[in-house]
Amino acid sequence: MKPVYVAGAAVHPFGKQPGLNAAELGYRAVRQLVEQTGITPDAVDVGYGGSSYGGSLLTQRVLQRVGVSGPPVYTVENACASGASAVHLGWQAVASGAADCVIAFGAENLSSFGGGTLPLTTNDIEIEQGMVMPAAYAMRAQRYLHDFGATADDLTAVSVKNRRNGAQNPRAHFQREISPQDVADSRAIADPLRLLHCCPNSDGAAAVLLCSEDFARQLDTPRVRVRGSVVRSGTFHTQFRDMTWPDITARTAKAAYEMAGLAPADLDLVELHDAFSIAELLHAEALGIAERGKAHQAVRNGEFDRDGRVAVSPSGGLISRGHPVGATGATQICEAYWQLTGQAGPLQVPGASVALTHVTGGGIFGVDNGACAMHILTAD
Amino acid sequence: MKPVYVAGAAVHPFGKQPGLNAAELGYRAVRQLVEQTGITPDAVDVGYGGSSYGGSLLTQRVLQRVGVSGPPVYTVENACASGASAVHLGWQAVASGAADCVIAFGAENLSSFGGGTLPLTTNDIEIEQGMVMPAAYAMRAQRYLHDFGATADDLTAVSVKNRRNGAQNPRAHFQREISPQDVADSRAIADPLRLLHCCPNSDGAAAVLLCSEDFARQLDTPRVRVRGSVVRSGTFHTQFRDMTWPDITARTAKAAYEMAGLAPADLDLVELHDAFSIAELLHAEALGIAERGKAHQAVRNGEFDRDGRVAVSPSGGLISRGHPVGATGATQICEAYWQLTGQAGPLQVPGASVALTHVTGGGIFGVDNGACAMHILTAD
Repeated sequence: MKPVYVAGAAVHPFGKQPGLNAAELGYRAVRQLVEQTGITPDAVDVGYGGSSYGGSLLTQRVLQRVGVSGPPVYTVENACASGASAVHLGWQAVASGAADCVIAFGAENLSSFGGGTLPLTTNDIEIEQGMVMPAAYAMRAQRYLHDFGATADDLTAVSVKNRRNGAQNPRAHFQREISPQDVADSRAIADPLRLLHCCPNSDGAAAVLLCSEDFARQLDTPRVRVRGSVVRSGTFHTQFRDMTWPDITARTAKAAYEMAGLAPADLDLVELHDAFSIAELLHAEALGIAERGKAHQAVRNGEFDRDGRVAVSPSGGLISRGHPVGATGATQICEAYWQLTGQAGPLQVPGASVALTHVTGGGIFGVDNGACAMHILTAD
Repeated sequence: MKPVYVAGAAVHPFGKQPGLNAAELGYRAVRQLVEQTGITPDAVDVGYGGSSYGGSLLTQRVLQRVGVSGPPVYTVENACASGASAVHLGWQAVASGAADCVIAFGAENLSSFGGGTLPLTTNDIEIEQGMVMPAAYAMRAQRYLHDFGATADDLTAVSVKNRRNGAQNPRAHFQREISPQDVADSRAIADPLRLLHCCPNSDGAAAVLLCSEDFARQLDTPRVRVRGSVVRSGTFHTQFRDMTWPDITARTAKAAYEMAGLAPADLDLVELHDAFSIAELLHAEALGIAERGKAHQAVRNGEFDRDGRVAVSPSGGLISRGHPVGATGATQICEAYWQLTGQAGPLQVPGASVALTHVTGGGIFGVDNGACAMHILTAD
């Protein structure tokens, strides 16, 4: 396997942008990437676009506007992991020697669909009966609180931390801090989750340049090394239906750590799929950055703060940054790139040299087989 | 690059099946494939599903029903080339040594969407103003007739041939021959195209098992070798807007012939993307199986008949077999597999040992950057 680098990253800011379709959002991110890196259209060997609702030939429609027409291009769907799946396939193309230069992006206009879970699947009786994403995560939250002696205030602490991080991120959907009282005052969604325990439905896009070592050396942009890149399918519970252990994250992490030759203790920061505050606790434990049943204590103790033991979602996470489904996984890799190249500005994690990005797709019980995509990146 | 084999193929018959969503259709094809080949769920290293309208996590929803949950899986979108793009990515995984056993499928329920081009893209002003797929191909047909002295009867000859072929295909949407008079009597769609010059909107699915040589040897099913597998993006006209030369097909073919070390004259059969009768003429010329401006003569002379110089769409093509967007490219490979393993029954092309499959996606002028996926297969 050849070494693979990220040598450029660009995000079109997240938020409600109903007038911009996925192709326009994707184009704005990719154009920035092309301008920033100075690559020519002819250099692009293959393109991957991640999106769930972007429509047919999204990747062609985005790339033709930066002059890329000719190479193989694909649109990849893996629900919320679509953008990171696009990056993974780009990594594969470079790692296998088939490509030297790949554009991978994620783009989504979610507000056109009214957000929510309903467009996610068709003819799924459990979803039609109300087992939508917030309901599924609420059940997991209830179980977590029951099993591990946590409280709704612990869930709130996740939201408060991530909104504090995102308040300094100019690309975030929400750029304002919130207090525990704000969370308590927000409307109930699915007990114990209140509105501010949930990520917003957003529109946005992010793009990444993946390349070989030789190609990266020709560019003026800084680069980071992709040490691990793994996609898996699977369930969000154990074989025996323990719903507080997202098996898919644990399995994907195991493979990613092995590939990278690194362990959870090596991580300086994690961009984590906190679609709901409870998700940060569950996935942090499955990633091995907190002990089982103790992630809520880690949050409370400040261990996941930007200057803590391991910064979790220093960019604000989905709760603050927003969640344009297909764009989320790609934007996490952009945020990690800026951290590892010292370009994260007010978001900078001191001395960041190892980052992990984690995104999951699916996870409703009716669709009992979702996606997880993970990347481990290091400063070069 | 390691040798790659197709060692199993299964099709869920095409037709109007509004009660079966894409996940159900895909499952029916994949289940057949698994039963036929006897593979166990654990053997599957990666899965790719091709679909344009199948919804989020389609590939997960299909594969979990045959017990495959765990490995990386992806849904791939490339309009009508989605299924063949899934097969191509599967080929890549085996060719690079990353996988020994891949399930690739295409599945689509098109009748749920009312068929047609409108769901294909969003916010495309040319499509909204009427430049839908039949209109685009009608313009190409007008130009072809004008430039090369062909007539509407020549277009009709394509439909009559492909319906004659498909009349013997139990998987085809239309299993009835038509006469030139039937075509003339069918309603006008976009001059010179009449209804029977157009493929029907269909629902269906097809699945393919791709594997390494060692894996193929463990199976009891016959195998064929994948000699060429190429995907490209690009335009359906030349740089100078000659609309009778589908540049994307010519470029993809050049790469596929090079990879295979074969030439157009080596082909015994071609499964071609005849979404409209004119498309067979244009693409046959770009594939090099007819001289420029003379494909209509080849059809008239019987050169593309099942027992002709090179059989073109002996299974009936899109015009007869139907066109469930994402399933079409995968079903072409199934039909080629049966031809090369002597299992094509009444469709059998005598002595078939080299087959090419060709599918394009997009090609409306407004979306000036489509997809083409091509495979060259040989008897082992």
